[in-house]
Amino acid sequence: MLLYNSAVSGNCYKVRLLLAQLGIGYETVDVSVVDRSNRAEILGELNHGLRVPTLVLDDGRPLAESNAILWYFADGTAYLSEDPYARAQALQWMFFEQYSHEPYVAVARFLLAYSGQPELFERRRERLLEGGYAALDAMERHLERRAFLVADRYSIADIALYAYTHVADEGDFDLAGYPAIRAWLGRVVAQPGHVTIDS
Amino acid sequence: MLLYNSAVSGNCYKVRLLLAQLGIGYETVDVSVVDRSNRAEILGELNHGLRVPTLVLDDGRPLAESNAILWYFADGTAYLSEDPYARAQALQWMFFEQYSHEPYVAVARFLLAYSGQPELFERRRERLLEGGYAALDAMERHLERRAFLVADRYSIADIALYAYTHVADEGDFDLAGYPAIRAWLGRVVAQPGHVTIDS
Repeated sequence: MLLYNSAVSGNCYKVRLLLAQLGIGYETVDVSVVDRSNRAEILGELNHGLRVPTLVLDDGRPLAESNAILWYFADGTAYLSEDPYARAQALQWMFFEQYSHEPYVAVARFLLAYSGQPELFERRRERLLEGGYAALDAMERHLERRAFLVADRYSIADIALYAYTHVADEGDFDLAGYPAIRAWLGRVVAQPGHVTIDS
Repeated sequence: MLLYNSAVSGNCYKVRLLLAQLGIGYETVDVSVVDRSNRAEILGELNHGLRVPTLVLDDGRPLAESNAILWYFADGTAYLSEDPYARAQALQWMFFEQYSHEPYVAVARFLLAYSGQPELFERRRERLLEGGYAALDAMERHLERRAFLVADRYSIADIALYAYTHVADEGDFDLAGYPAIRAWLGRVVAQPGHVTIDS
């Protein structure tokens, strides 16, 4: 199996984390998230969206979008409930992640720490921080009364939201006012088979 | 069942379209997508994300995020395959929709046609059109060789992407150069039980 991967991308890290916890091996091809000029050449036939992660299964079939890849491998394992409502809730949080969290928390981190053009962050600072803190507020209120995002057990919904939340400080977010999120981050790290984003 | 709904929202229309095709009845509560000042009061306890659609099931449990709601009702029906790879592909297109399509195609339409402040569209015009056309390009290349997005049959992936693509002209997108998309739009409309966004 082949993962088109970026070491710094939280979206790619989601896949690496789940596959590590499932004990599934794979090879990687590094794709730059800064210089995107060769994306069509590398990924054009595999994923018209031209994004990483893109995975090529053992039989050659491609699969893209981090949270779709998580679902494919987690279904039937302890990382995704069998209960229809819990499954829909996991998807609810994963769509929340891609629409309301990643475009602020991940983009702020990318622009500030990895783009080589931190002035782009400064230009969009207000909107990025406002959107990111709104997403963190929603997570905090939910986690105040729960150990994990869905059905009180660790699942791919937690993996999806852990990926960029645990490095939110790199995008200038301060989690000091988010005790429930910080406790949850600790519970995610304590899961068997956890690997860090730079491992 | 109670749907917190906006008549003009494509995300809400996705849910109305699938429930019509499944023959499932529900009541609606109208929520403004322009004046959002009462969102926390209306939706706070149901969906910390404060977005529509939010659905309250017959037993009182809430579910949010349009594509998660689609999944919940489609699973086990003809609108979602039983095949693990096809299911993951459906999710791939639904995450593509929320990350790479909706933030451009839907936002352009909202700002231009529904926000009451079309000057906001003009200010972001270049970025909205560039992102939206990139998403339409990816769909066009995929649909050039396929009748539907996944496994050559109509599914919730088609519903998810139909919702805003069929009204893309309201956001100043021109589909003249997208013959595969236009043919696919026609195939979606021809499905049994189809309802329009304003019905």
